[in-house]
Amino acid sequence: MSDPHKTSGTEHSTRGAYVTGGEFTRDTNYIEDRVVADVDAVRSAPAEKSSTIGDPRIAGLTEDAEAWPVEAGRYRLVAARACPWAHRTIIIRRLLGLEDAISLATPGPVHDVRSWTFDLSPDGRDPVLNTQWLQENYFKRFPDYPRGITVPALVDVPSGQVVTNNYPQLTFDFSTQWSEFHRPGAPNLIPEDLVEDMLPVIKRIFTEINNGVYRSGFAGSQSAYEEAYDRLFTALDWVEERLESRRYLMGDHITEPDIRLFTTLVRFDPVYHGHFKCNRNKLTEFPNLWAYARDLFQTPGFGDTVDFDQIKAHYYVVHEDVNPTQIVPVGPELESWLSPHGRDSLGGSPFGEGTAPGPLSVEEQPPGVNPLST
Amino acid sequence: MSDPHKTSGTEHSTRGAYVTGGEFTRDTNYIEDRVVADVDAVRSAPAEKSSTIGDPRIAGLTEDAEAWPVEAGRYRLVAARACPWAHRTIIIRRLLGLEDAISLATPGPVHDVRSWTFDLSPDGRDPVLNTQWLQENYFKRFPDYPRGITVPALVDVPSGQVVTNNYPQLTFDFSTQWSEFHRPGAPNLIPEDLVEDMLPVIKRIFTEINNGVYRSGFAGSQSAYEEAYDRLFTALDWVEERLESRRYLMGDHITEPDIRLFTTLVRFDPVYHGHFKCNRNKLTEFPNLWAYARDLFQTPGFGDTVDFDQIKAHYYVVHEDVNPTQIVPVGPELESWLSPHGRDSLGGSPFGEGTAPGPLSVEEQPPGVNPLST
Repeated sequence: MSDPHKTSGTEHSTRGAYVTGGEFTRDTNYIEDRVVADVDAVRSAPAEKSSTIGDPRIAGLTEDAEAWPVEAGRYRLVAARACPWAHRTIIIRRLLGLEDAISLATPGPVHDVRSWTFDLSPDGRDPVLNTQWLQENYFKRFPDYPRGITVPALVDVPSGQVVTNNYPQLTFDFSTQWSEFHRPGAPNLIPEDLVEDMLPVIKRIFTEINNGVYRSGFAGSQSAYEEAYDRLFTALDWVEERLESRRYLMGDHITEPDIRLFTTLVRFDPVYHGHFKCNRNKLTEFPNLWAYARDLFQTPGFGDTVDFDQIKAHYYVVHEDVNPTQIVPVGPELESWLSPHGRDSLGGSPFGEGTAPGPLSVEEQPPGVNPLST
Repeated sequence: MSDPHKTSGTEHSTRGAYVTGGEFTRDTNYIEDRVVADVDAVRSAPAEKSSTIGDPRIAGLTEDAEAWPVEAGRYRLVAARACPWAHRTIIIRRLLGLEDAISLATPGPVHDVRSWTFDLSPDGRDPVLNTQWLQENYFKRFPDYPRGITVPALVDVPSGQVVTNNYPQLTFDFSTQWSEFHRPGAPNLIPEDLVEDMLPVIKRIFTEINNGVYRSGFAGSQSAYEEAYDRLFTALDWVEERLESRRYLMGDHITEPDIRLFTTLVRFDPVYHGHFKCNRNKLTEFPNLWAYARDLFQTPGFGDTVDFDQIKAHYYVVHEDVNPTQIVPVGPELESWLSPHGRDSLGGSPFGEGTAPGPLSVEEQPPGVNPLST
C-alpha cells in the first residue's frame, strides 16, 4: 500500500488506489457507518470486522462506525450512473422499490479537480443537497477527509453529511434493514438458505472480475498486466461454465451476486475490452455469459438503469493517463443487447415469488444512449 | 499540411503525418524512383504524375525520379513485419517468387530515435547492408533527407542507397517489371482486363480503410474521430457486401487489392479495434469479411507472413501518445484464424492459372506468434 503510481493517478481522486510492484491495489478503507432498522441493537452488538464484500448477516458495526436510523425521505443516495460500484445501488434500490424512501442524485460522468460534481443539474448544484461537489458532503462529515471522494455515497439530507460510502455493505443493508419500505413484490436478493454459498461467489466476482478489470487496466508493468489478464479470464471462464446449467448465478432466481456481476459485464465491451486491455474476447463472444447478460439487461431494473454514454465518457475522459486524447469511442453497436437470449429454456424466473418493478419514473430515466429507449 | 500534432508525433518518425483541423493527413511524398525492366524506355517516356495508389500501366517516371535496372541480387527489400505498408511487399514478393532475386531485411517492430532499426539481427546490424538503422541508408542516398524513415524501402546493395520507398508503385512494379524473375506458376495479380475496375477499388481501400484506421486512431478531436469512424465503417460495410457474392475482391482469383486489404484486416482486431478506437465491431463480427480474411490467411503467402507479436508491439509501444503505458495487450485469441471459412462454396481459386508458393524458407519464417506454426 505504497508508491502511488501515475497510471492510477486519476483513479485516486475517485477511489483510493495504489500500485505496488506494478500491481493495482484498491484502497478499501471506507466510512463504514450503517443505516439500520434497530439502532440500539446494532450499537450494542459485538464489533464486526471490515469486509471487502460486506455480509448480510452482520449484527453490529465495525470499529469507529456509527448506526443511523432507517427513515423514509431522510437519506439521499449519490450514485453516478457511470460507476459500476454505484450502479449496483441504483439497480438494487429499484428492484426493492426504495425509490420513494431513498431519493437519488446522479453526478455527471466526468470529474473536475474536486472529483464527482452535480453538473448534470441545470444550475450545477444538486437540488436537494444544494452542493456543487460531492466533496462538500464528505467535508461536512469530516472537514479533513483524506481519502477518495467516492460514489455511491449515502448522504443525510438534514445535515448534508455523508453517512456511508461503504458500497459492499450498503446494498445488503438495503435488503435487510430497509424491508419496511420495500415495495410489495420486492424480490429476496439474499435468501437465507443461499447466503453461505453466495458469499464465496460474491468474493470471487469482486476480487477477480469487478476489480480484475481495473487490475488489468491500471497495471504498472507488462508482467502485472499479463497476470491480471490471466486472473480475469480464468474467472470469466469459471462464470461462463457456471452459467451453462444455471439461469442465474445462484440458480433459478436473481440474487445479489447477479447484480454485482452485471455492472461489470455491461461495461465490458464498451470500456474494459479496449480501454483496460481485457481483450482475449468480447463479452459477446462468451455464449453463456453474453446470453445471461442480455437476459438481465432485458429484465426491468437492469438495462433500464444503464447509460452507455455516461459509462464511456467516464472512463475515457477521466483516465487521462490511459487515454491522453480523451477521445471517446463511438462503438460498440448496442442493438444486440435486445436480441433474444434463450435463457428461459433453463427454467427459473427472475424474481422468484416476487414481481418485476414497474416502469421507471420519467425523472429517473438515464439521459444517455440506451437501446431500450431508442 | 501544417500543424504537426502531438497525437501523430511518433508516427512522424516512421512516415510523415500531420493533423489539420483535427484530421490526420498522411504525408504522401516519397522517393519515387523505379526499378524497371527497360531503363531507357522508362527514362524517355513522358513524365507521370504521382499517385497515392500507384498505377501498373505507367510507362515513365514522376518528376525528379530515376530509373534503375532490374537485376537479381542487387536490391534488398527492407520491410518490417509490423508495418502494413511493408507487409504488402512481403506477401507479393512471396506470391511472385521473387525471394531469390530480391533479398529481405526485416527491421524490428519498435523504434529508437532514429526510427526503424535492424535490432532483430544478432549483432544489431543488417548482415547484408551492414547498417544499424535504416536511416543510414536514406542518408547514403540523400545526406539531408528531411522526411520520414519509412518501410518498405528498396535498397541498392552495392551503394547502400535507398532506391525507392514509394510503396504504392513498388508492388505493381514487382508484378510488371520483374516478370523475368517470377517463379513458374506465379499468379497474375493485375490481369489486364481488370485494371480499369481494380484501380477505383484500390483507391477506396487506401483512402477509406488502409488509411482510414489511422485517421480514426490519430484524430486530434472528437469530431474528427467520429467522422473518421463513420467513413471507415461505411467502407467496411461496402466491402462486406461486395464479398457476399465474390470469393475475392475482383472475382474468382486473388489480385493486388486483396493483398492491400488483407494487411489491414489482419491487424484489425489485434490493434485497430482497441488502439485506434475502430470499435463498432471486430473483424470477427463481419460474416463475409471475416471468412474472406481467414480464406486468405490460410492461403500460402498470406498467413505465413504474419507476425502478430511484432504487429502488436509496434503500435502499442511506438505510439506512446496513444498508449502511454506502452503495455501490449495479450489478446485477442488467434486460433480462430484457422477455423473453416467456407468460401470455397463461392467457387473461384486463389491463384487462377497459377499455383501456390511453396513453403517458406526457414530464414524467412516470422519469429513471433502465428497460429499456423503452433
